[in-house]
Amino acid sequence: MQYFDRAAILQMDRNFRVNLVNTLSGYKPANLIGTLGSDGVENLAIFSSVVHLGSDPALLGFIQRPVGEQSHTYKNIIENGFYTINHISLAHLQQAHETSARFAKNISEFKACGFTPRYALGFTAPFVQESVVQIGMRLVQEVKIELNDTRLMIGQIEHVFVQDGLVDSDGSLRLEDGQVACIRGLDTYCQAMRVARFPYAKANPK
Amino acid sequence: MQYFDRAAILQMDRNFRVNLVNTLSGYKPANLIGTLGSDGVENLAIFSSVVHLGSDPALLGFIQRPVGEQSHTYKNIIENGFYTINHISLAHLQQAHETSARFAKNISEFKACGFTPRYALGFTAPFVQESVVQIGMRLVQEVKIELNDTRLMIGQIEHVFVQDGLVDSDGSLRLEDGQVACIRGLDTYCQAMRVARFPYAKANPK
Repeated sequence: MQYFDRAAILQMDRNFRVNLVNTLSGYKPANLIGTLGSDGVENLAIFSSVVHLGSDPALLGFIQRPVGEQSHTYKNIIENGFYTINHISLAHLQQAHETSARFAKNISEFKACGFTPRYALGFTAPFVQESVVQIGMRLVQEVKIELNDTRLMIGQIEHVFVQDGLVDSDGSLRLEDGQVACIRGLDTYCQAMRVARFPYAKANPK
Repeated sequence: MQYFDRAAILQMDRNFRVNLVNTLSGYKPANLIGTLGSDGVENLAIFSSVVHLGSDPALLGFIQRPVGEQSHTYKNIIENGFYTINHISLAHLQQAHETSARFAKNISEFKACGFTPRYALGFTAPFVQESVVQIGMRLVQEVKIELNDTRLMIGQIEHVFVQDGLVDSDGSLRLEDGQVACIRGLDTYCQAMRVARFPYAKANPK
């Protein structure tokens, strides 16, 4: 096996380290976060750090990198209080990836990258019309992680829109049938194919 | 589209809600966390909430559910300070899923589920020999999330072992070639196939 210790990771070329460490957690979800600023400009940005926090109440988190001038998503969420999480399909990978570019604040990535903002039910953040799963979120807590100046942004699920036919009889979403993508590292996109499902596991000590 | 609001989610049958909300974040990584208790008993448990927190320092987090009598992974990490994160391959899905059963504290899931503990470099937590990516972690911070009694457990990467041939020239791990799985919801396992890679995105306002 190849081996790297902490010292080797520290001393790596920056790009090599970023690519390595970004693949070490495994496959990641592929989401677009949609927001609306107090200036009336929409923002759309790709995130691969959305994580399930609990089902009752239904909470999702995501990791916000150190906040700077370019952190339009963060600023809009703090100002507005609401945001959307939208799944990325295989048909829109390049457009979704392009939202990671540093667009000026007065540019909407919806327009620049070819997505359609959708407003519904008086919700103040734009959903992505092209997404087969669109979730309306309310910010409920911002947890600062002093170690590296990141934040765990915690939101409560307010609205869920799912393309017809994707909700299984047990509540699961058949993401594969919606051609939902996943991400490996910083820039590689994958299609997931279902290979196995197992019943609730019970201990049977040997 | 099908629509669920917050009230509908609250009122759902519990299993339906758990399945739905667990698929709402998208695809999830498939990892086994290996620990060693002060009683000398190893523990191995499947987690789908490992998240990249930063590359410099190299940090990974995972979500610990509300701690109870059965939280052997948590107890061992607190006692020991070290743990391992190991990727799950398609060849070991059923065994990996079985680690989620409620085994008694004196039972090692390595033994009960058919994995081989591997000790290396004096590290006090067991790696999973069957995994193509094995990461040695040191707990650096436990962030309590009062909202739902969960915790973000933050660890620093101390050791990385990767199967020969999986590290690309740019540092990325070719997880697909290692047959690394991903998870959809609570119990469905998927194979990921690379479909696209894009260069670093640059803004080109239209």
